Amino acid sequence: MDQHFFSEANYRKIIEEVIPFHQILGIKLVEMRDGYCKLHIPYKKELIGDPRSLRIHGGVISTAMDAAGGGAGFTKLSSVKDVISTIDIRIDYLFPGRAEDLLVEGVIVRSSKHLIFTDMHAFHPGDEQWIASGRAVYKVRRAEDL
Amino acid sequence: MDQHFFSEANYRKIIEEVIPFHQILGIKLVEMRDGYCKLHIPYKKELIGDPRSLRIHGGVISTAMDAAGGGAGFTKLSSVKDVISTIDIRIDYLFPGRAEDLLVEGVIVRSSKHLIFTDMHAFHPGDEQWIASGRAVYKVRRAEDL
Amino acid sequence: MDQHFFSEANYRKIIEEVIPFHQILGIKLVEMRDGYCKLHIPYKKELIGDPRSLRIHGGVISTAMDAAGGGAGFTKLSSVKDVISTIDIRIDYLFPGRAEDLLVEGVIVRSSKHLIFTDMHAFHPGDEQWIASGRAVYKVRRAEDL
Amino acid sequence: MDQHFFSEANYRKIIEEVIPFHQILGIKLVEMRDGYCKLHIPYKKELIGDPRSLRIHGGVISTAMDAAGGGAGFTKLSSVKDVISTIDIRIDYLFPGRAEDLLVEGVIVRSSKHLIFTDMHAFHPGDEQWIASGRAVYKVRRAEDL
Repeated sequence: MDQHFFSEANYRKIIEEVIPFHQILGIKLVEMRDGYCKLHIPYKKELIGDPRSLRIHGGVISTAMDAAGGGAGFTKLSSVKDVISTIDIRIDYLFPGRAEDLLVEGVIVRSSKHLIFTDMHAFHPGDEQWIASGRAVYKVRRAEDL
Repeated sequence: MDQHFFSEANYRKIIEEVIPFHQILGIKLVEMRDGYCKLHIPYKKELIGDPRSLRIHGGVISTAMDAAGGGAGFTKLSSVKDVISTIDIRIDYLFPGRAEDLLVEGVIVRSSKHLIFTDMHAFHPGDEQWIASGRAVYKVRRAEDL
Repeated sequence: MDQHFFSEANYRKIIEEVIPFHQILGIKLVEMRDGYCKLHIPYKKELIGDPRSLRIHGGVISTAMDAAGGGAGFTKLSSVKDVISTIDIRIDYLFPGRAEDLLVEGVIVRSSKHLIFTDMHAFHPGDEQWIASGRAVYKVRRAEDL
Repeated sequence: MDQHFFSEANYRKIIEEVIPFHQILGIKLVEMRDGYCKLHIPYKKELIGDPRSLRIHGGVISTAMDAAGGGAGFTKLSSVKDVISTIDIRIDYLFPGRAEDLLVEGVIVRSSKHLIFTDMHAFHPGDEQWIASGRAVYKVRRAEDL
């Protein structure tokens, strides 16, 4: 296992700089530890889905949830060459997302060698009420299997 | 019913210009008719999720699917003041999305006064193979109920 | 509001005796309070899905989850004539269900006048590990709206 | 590959006789071919979920959908020792199921060595309107991998 690769600094670099679509959203890594990932999306007007009601677009939330669940799954990889990809995701939109910063947590509820199940939640800083909850399943293709 | 509002020109304006997050993705309206919406996302490098494999980010696909399902639902509104919002969405990622243009279709499978169920599919132009399929449920708050 | 109707004794009667498909599974009410419902399915060999591995059938789990989520939602009704029905449900199967008793909890994560979102979990008595987790959305048609 | 095992007669025996929970529902095999499975659930009063409205219980539909999707997946197995199990399932309830016979189809939309994605639909004989639609993902553990 490549210790240098699995450092928080490297996770941060991948999530914030290496993935182009994360840069468009402005996703920032808040915390990453075994089976857990927390992301921050600073508010900007480009994230709005409805300019009348100033709601965050559901696609911002689904993207951040997939990133948070995948980030949690990332902590279960053991080689730089391991590949994790989303099998499916479900998002429940509980409340409209306001024109404010967004926090999204992903936590693993079950992981085996090739499958990882995660729960995700989105909320605004300082407000514990979830605005959305999600579930995803990821597959892992491990370098050791090749 | 406001005929002018429910014209294809106006749908196009809303989908392509009014919704800020759609502009970031570059979503274009291809076709919109009763219970159906087809969108086009021209490829650009910012949509990539993994720069090693050049896969489209799953969040691009989930955003476009929510837009296509919501677009199909939009054709069931009868007032400018009606509001449609996503209750939940599920996306199955069947194949990696390549670094190419993307087409996403949304079609209504059931609509009642306050609930709309849709199926969505994503694929590359010229290739009928779905790269992802989705299902969503939308709620409609009708101005006539207020 | 009909106080007599919304008693635990009456909930128990509905869940255990009035619903024919619950009787086939042998569903028992363990606990029901505001926004929460816990059910018990005593093991019997008819609930098996694979006689080689003696796993509980996934349909037993999905049925019990829908019952537990709907049971939690039931506590938000205010008239005998209110009708709650499932819009959609998702179940993640985390571990095979063993040939043992099953407990299923449903808890409301968000309820509005016409929509109820629930989380559900299934596990074996004495073992906190979830064998399955679920999410459902229910619609409520209220007598007062008719 | 064991030709005798993968005969329609054997599929029928497994679906109708070997799986105990299928016997409780009275599931019958209508058709099974590569990537496709159609099941029939003859109406009986034990399948009712609400005796006031005489609706089929959602758990009957979710069980039959899981059986139909898994049945379709079964046609992709190549050894008696291969094991297919449900990772997750989503069901959308479009219309109430009436107190009548039920047909449920499962069709594979994508299959790889270890993952199978299926679409399922439920309807009443003689009525093409879907009463429910579903999606599931199955994992396959192949004997050749052991």
